Amino acid sequence: MTVIAQRLVGEVLLLTGGQLVPGGAVDIGTDGRIVAVGPESGLAPPERVGSVDRVGGLLMPGLVNAHAHTPMTLVRSAGDGMPLETWLTDAIWPREGHMTPDDAKWGMMLGSTEMLLAGVTTSCEMYFFEDAMVEAVRRTGGRLVMTPGVVSALLPNGDVEPRITELDELFSRYHDPSGRVTVGFAPHSPYDLTPEQVAKIARQAQAVGALLHIHLEETEAERALVLARHGCTATQLLADHGVLEGQVLAAHGVWLDANDQRLLAEAGASVAHCPISNLKLGSGIAPVVDFLSAGVNVGLGTDGVASNDNLDLWEEVKLTPLLARGSRRDPAAMDAAATLTLATTGAARAVGLDSVGDLRPGAWADVIRIDLDQPQFAPGIDLLTHVVFAGSSRHVTDVWVAGHRVVSDRMSTMVDLDEVVAQCRTRGRRLALAN
Amino acid sequence: MTVIAQRLVGEVLLLTGGQLVPGGAVDIGTDGRIVAVGPESGLAPPERVGSVDRVGGLLMPGLVNAHAHTPMTLVRSAGDGMPLETWLTDAIWPREGHMTPDDAKWGMMLGSTEMLLAGVTTSCEMYFFEDAMVEAVRRTGGRLVMTPGVVSALLPNGDVEPRITELDELFSRYHDPSGRVTVGFAPHSPYDLTPEQVAKIARQAQAVGALLHIHLEETEAERALVLARHGCTATQLLADHGVLEGQVLAAHGVWLDANDQRLLAEAGASVAHCPISNLKLGSGIAPVVDFLSAGVNVGLGTDGVASNDNLDLWEEVKLTPLLARGSRRDPAAMDAAATLTLATTGAARAVGLDSVGDLRPGAWADVIRIDLDQPQFAPGIDLLTHVVFAGSSRHVTDVWVAGHRVVSDRMSTMVDLDEVVAQCRTRGRRLALAN
Repeated sequence: MTVIAQRLVGEVLLLTGGQLVPGGAVDIGTDGRIVAVGPESGLAPPERVGSVDRVGGLLMPGLVNAHAHTPMTLVRSAGDGMPLETWLTDAIWPREGHMTPDDAKWGMMLGSTEMLLAGVTTSCEMYFFEDAMVEAVRRTGGRLVMTPGVVSALLPNGDVEPRITELDELFSRYHDPSGRVTVGFAPHSPYDLTPEQVAKIARQAQAVGALLHIHLEETEAERALVLARHGCTATQLLADHGVLEGQVLAAHGVWLDANDQRLLAEAGASVAHCPISNLKLGSGIAPVVDFLSAGVNVGLGTDGVASNDNLDLWEEVKLTPLLARGSRRDPAAMDAAATLTLATTGAARAVGLDSVGDLRPGAWADVIRIDLDQPQFAPGIDLLTHVVFAGSSRHVTDVWVAGHRVVSDRMSTMVDLDEVVAQCRTRGRRLALAN
Repeated sequence: MTVIAQRLVGEVLLLTGGQLVPGGAVDIGTDGRIVAVGPESGLAPPERVGSVDRVGGLLMPGLVNAHAHTPMTLVRSAGDGMPLETWLTDAIWPREGHMTPDDAKWGMMLGSTEMLLAGVTTSCEMYFFEDAMVEAVRRTGGRLVMTPGVVSALLPNGDVEPRITELDELFSRYHDPSGRVTVGFAPHSPYDLTPEQVAKIARQAQAVGALLHIHLEETEAERALVLARHGCTATQLLADHGVLEGQVLAAHGVWLDANDQRLLAEAGASVAHCPISNLKLGSGIAPVVDFLSAGVNVGLGTDGVASNDNLDLWEEVKLTPLLARGSRRDPAAMDAAATLTLATTGAARAVGLDSVGDLRPGAWADVIRIDLDQPQFAPGIDLLTHVVFAGSSRHVTDVWVAGHRVVSDRMSTMVDLDEVVAQCRTRGRRLALAN
């Protein structure tokens, strides 16, 4: 018989699809997974529960950030106002070139804690400094989908094989679906790498069953470059090289056309929609409603803080339906329930996790508590709409990851945030001066 | 000699135009106005100051919400997904029709406190229930620009004169630039009222020196309606009827063309830009950069919470440059300093107040404190960009209006928020059921 280690009881439970359960509770096993959810009256008798915590408020799944480069907290806001290409080459990469593994660890601890305090329990990270990333989330308590990057500038003589060997080793070392870290492979983009390089990485990802995470169609300039170089779109290029045969997460997709979307849908691929970053860099507005209509799975992402400039996925939660409605001139273009799906189950599927983003038996107990005693939740008649359009990270008070309470009353229980902030101030200034 | 009642000392002072002053302080007189601002070392000696409060953090002007209908907190989120016209007629007006003055008072107290907790110290309100509105802000401590509405449905036999008499009386009773309440006149729109009705109201506003606050070009349908009915745009219609000769605040302006913008600029009129509401109702994206280029003053507004669904102007602060950049595909379209201006001095000018929105001698001491010890402000090199793009209402800890501390450590010092929330839950549910 499954042991129920703890029970969290709220005023309301928010389940996938927008279902609201008054007097709802979540039963959590000793393994950190959910045993049962639903009205408290229908659950096991209290004597079978280790501890009952009447936390009140709204209990809902932790949000999932489908696309981030979180150690970039150290270069937050750098180069604001530049277009993507010069922003990367003139402001970001020179600073990142001086980053040490220790810098990355502190930057990741800062960003991971920033996310956890906002109720974002999982992030999918395209970055480097893999040991440091894992060490950081071990300390903050967050859940990490780590997809180590492959960029042309770091390949010796353009040879991608040594990096593939590293990715394989990282996958063997860290990929653990029974823990808090899983591993994917992240070739940067079809414009930075050759299709043959991307295909080699994809074949190895497919061989080990790893997620393939790649930037796709972020800017119109990038689309034009690939069209000129290869005579077809980047998505067609990936399809032609067998890259879409595995599990693929394409970040951005601002300029995907209908055929690109069809190819992604047929392949069961996902798009990480990063509306704030896309607006901030002047890249455009991705046609998310078209993606969904075409059958493409969508998850929301913040992208890196240098183009956002925070990791507060609640902002993407509100902005996504706003942009869908405004750009289509249709207030019915996306509703609150559909929106929440993109930040929970949609994003979880996008990053290759089938047991987060959802409060159901067997799923990880990644749970957040929303304080409903705030002005933004009155009158409370349309509570789901309040949560999506009036709610924000300021209402998240407590966060559990795999049943472990990593945020309590708006404070990290895991790290000394003042120390983390101080470290990142010093290290961020050093990178800026070294530039 | 001016008496310095209190001095607030922060780590950094944020002045208009984006100037950051380390070790800055604000000296406040017994009349609630600023005596001096600047580096503490350059201010009067401490023995001449009543009390010195070393609050730390970032001190900046309170934000100004240029367009709101705040008692609509009682109908928050109602009718989400409907287009503007049916949303008003089917979801909002039927509920509002049952609203009592006491409802409006509690709804205004809720929204006013929601704004103050977010660092929004002034709001310009187009609504009814004027005595209740004033009573509400007297209790919450907020600053109110009250512009009582004129809508055709409430005019007996289409006669606007009785309402103008009421407006006059309200102006005489409540307009007090030396206090916290000023009064303007608010004919709803050029499509709801006849041009003659609007002109009559405008002439009276001009006669007493009151702000004229009007909806203008919110939807394309409304633009088409006015063009069909009058053979010219709504803005041209207002100009032709002498309405633009006074001080005019036009809300929305999504569909203003270049000639409309020129007319508004020449008249010294302002636009209240409400990007969240405009997206949520599917109205479109107002060309704010064009407005500014044309010389039209712009202030940011939330609109009512039924189309937002909160009063957190920080969201408009971030979204305005994002939309400007994204829609123009230009990451340099609007920078952090220009953005902050729209939420402070631009909005203050828009609502007819020349001594708020700015920390300078003689201005009201409407000051907010931002907690800089948060992840979103590390590394802190580009602090102004952090404030606009990474900051949010969650970082506002303390708020002063006319030198009086109305929010302390994220709590209202003025009202029992739990009571206000409870009242609005009950009253909001009654309105929904009465509908």
